[in-house]
Amino acid sequence: MRDEYRADLVQVNRLLVWMADAVRSAMARATNALLKADQTDAEEVIARDAEVNALYRLVEDKVYDLCARQAPVASDLRLVLTALHLAADLERMGDLAEHVAKTALRRHPGVAVPEPLVETFEQMGVVADRIAGKISRAISTSDVVAAGQLDRDDDEMDRLHTSLFTTMFGPAWSEGTEAAVDSALLGRFYERYADHAVNAGRHVVFLVTGEALDSRPE
Amino acid sequence: MRDEYRADLVQVNRLLVWMADAVRSAMARATNALLKADQTDAEEVIARDAEVNALYRLVEDKVYDLCARQAPVASDLRLVLTALHLAADLERMGDLAEHVAKTALRRHPGVAVPEPLVETFEQMGVVADRIAGKISRAISTSDVVAAGQLDRDDDEMDRLHTSLFTTMFGPAWSEGTEAAVDSALLGRFYERYADHAVNAGRHVVFLVTGEALDSRPE
Repeated sequence: MRDEYRADLVQVNRLLVWMADAVRSAMARATNALLKADQTDAEEVIARDAEVNALYRLVEDKVYDLCARQAPVASDLRLVLTALHLAADLERMGDLAEHVAKTALRRHPGVAVPEPLVETFEQMGVVADRIAGKISRAISTSDVVAAGQLDRDDDEMDRLHTSLFTTMFGPAWSEGTEAAVDSALLGRFYERYADHAVNAGRHVVFLVTGEALDSRPE
Repeated sequence: MRDEYRADLVQVNRLLVWMADAVRSAMARATNALLKADQTDAEEVIARDAEVNALYRLVEDKVYDLCARQAPVASDLRLVLTALHLAADLERMGDLAEHVAKTALRRHPGVAVPEPLVETFEQMGVVADRIAGKISRAISTSDVVAAGQLDRDDDEMDRLHTSLFTTMFGPAWSEGTEAAVDSALLGRFYERYADHAVNAGRHVVFLVTGEALDSRPE
């Protein structure tokens, strides 16, 4: 029984690693689609979000099945259900990458990001990739040190997000309303991606150590 | 045992009604804060979001406790865990009302919504209130007919959301970049509020009938 339980957990873990890698790759491609107006990358991100959603449902089914067959006690149950919360955050990160890709596609063949903000979005893409990489590693190796320090990466994302508005509302802005609106929404997608990643990181730490970090932000 | 299980479910149900009423009231006050630049309402919404979050944690604790004590079988388990998903959607609706309130506060004593968009945001507030009301009623009375028809309200919200952009990107727009950015983000908060409400409605229908509607949007 105990062996079967462990084997189930290993399977759930494998699905979560797939999800984390998929949403990392999705945001990397979406950022490229955004900055290079790359239609293929944008369409690929949108098409592959269905796979992320399918993985999410697999995690749900696996967890329900595991709970029903093994009837875990309270502390184990909380642990197992944490996998559901983690999967939900990863699924949402996939959605946000898809939103970035859709924005890129809407402006294609133009570039949705106006020139004065290109560098900021490049950096947001770098931070998003770093964060998602830490989560994937933490799930697959159970080394949660990096996942426990995601707040700092999130702070960096928040600074980049704030700087977008400083630029857009500054006197030198001459890119117009539509570019500002696109950039504000895009900025929010990256910022929310990082927020969900921080949540996901907390869930990973709890999954691996059984100890809760501070409660989630917001 | 079965009686105890039912009593637990009634308690979870009562918490969910409280949450639904709280996030409905939060968005109504946030909309008033937004359109009337009402500082008291805005601050109240922000302060009371902590109560919504506390209710969410109570639902979680209750559900974990219920699962651990009653070890429900697969179908019951899926049903009980649906309460968690529902609570998560309601919690997020509270966050979005808080975002609206914070935007109102940031522009206080000015009004964040420029004159050409006041009527659209009034209507978004009306639709948000109608949606949240249907969910609250469905949870408290188990009459899920209205909750099963939330897609139509959501379509109305989407139309209002789209009309924001038509106005902002039209030739008559003279409200500037900052007002456009505020309005775009505010529009997204209302639209997301409705999306989560539709999700919440699906969960309620499943809780009450045990039958799943189509899979969630996005």
